[in-house]
Amino acid sequence: MFTSRPIGFVSSPYKDASEVPKGLGAKHEADGVLKILPEFEVGLTDIEGFSHLIVIWEFDRSPKLELHGNRELHRDELLSTPPSDHRSHGVFATRSPRRPNPIGLTTVELRRREGTELHVRGVDMLDGTPILDIKPYLSNIPPEKLRRGWLAEAEARQKVMMLR
Amino acid sequence: MFTSRPIGFVSSPYKDASEVPKGLGAKHEADGVLKILPEFEVGLTDIEGFSHLIVIWEFDRSPKLELHGNRELHRDELLSTPPSDHRSHGVFATRSPRRPNPIGLTTVELRRREGTELHVRGVDMLDGTPILDIKPYLSNIPPEKLRRGWLAEAEARQKVMMLR
Repeated sequence: MFTSRPIGFVSSPYKDASEVPKGLGAKHEADGVLKILPEFEVGLTDIEGFSHLIVIWEFDRSPKLELHGNRELHRDELLSTPPSDHRSHGVFATRSPRRPNPIGLTTVELRRREGTELHVRGVDMLDGTPILDIKPYLSNIPPEKLRRGWLAEAEARQKVMMLR
Repeated sequence: MFTSRPIGFVSSPYKDASEVPKGLGAKHEADGVLKILPEFEVGLTDIEGFSHLIVIWEFDRSPKLELHGNRELHRDELLSTPPSDHRSHGVFATRSPRRPNPIGLTTVELRRREGTELHVRGVDMLDGTPILDIKPYLSNIPPEKLRRGWLAEAEARQKVMMLR
């Protein structure tokens, strides 16, 4: 067990969750800045060489997932109906903000660094979101091996609907 | 700020950090099991449809990164010399286990699910590692856009050495 502490904060155009693009085909192309606290600046050394970064952050404005003692009570709390589907799925099969640990993850494109400021594209966090960690994005999954479960199904259903 | 809590634990062939393949060209193909606690089982609903999962976990056996008040003292602590290079880089440009928040991230291939057990390939965690979160792996970065900084340089240097 550990207690999280921010290494910096996200500067984002989104002030409210309702503004973040969601659902099928939503594009995350918003520009934002990862403002790292000065005491962590040395940790950014050589980060400029990477085109993409994995940002791990805290869902600090989502209602907390309070699990009750009774296992049956957990049921609804651990299911989530994402904006991209009308069916519910387990939280671990979605990117739902209500999770046992309020940890979010976003892959962003690093455009440039200015000291402690990382200018990035592709933010979907709210303005002021605490950043917990940054890791370099190193490799893709071979595309022929990638299956995307209910999301691929929801996309296929939408395609059929649009063709009608 | 939040306090982490495990949603399960990794069953891995690695009992000690020295056993985990490291360095250039290291392959992570070990089979392991993500053993999710029974109270979180409902959260796994529909996870079987995804071929790859992002596992967020806790470096519970790495020496803690204790940052001192003085900014200059941070310098060495925030730099790390990875096994794949002889040069040091900022922790946020590496996957070093000593990080301000002891959060690790591994993408694994989901082979099959048996109730609360996710049988996966590609573990690099130690046996008994606490799992904090699981998210579906949804998309790749377009390969022509991906740059891998010091790691690509270290790989190129190794290639030259081998050709000599």
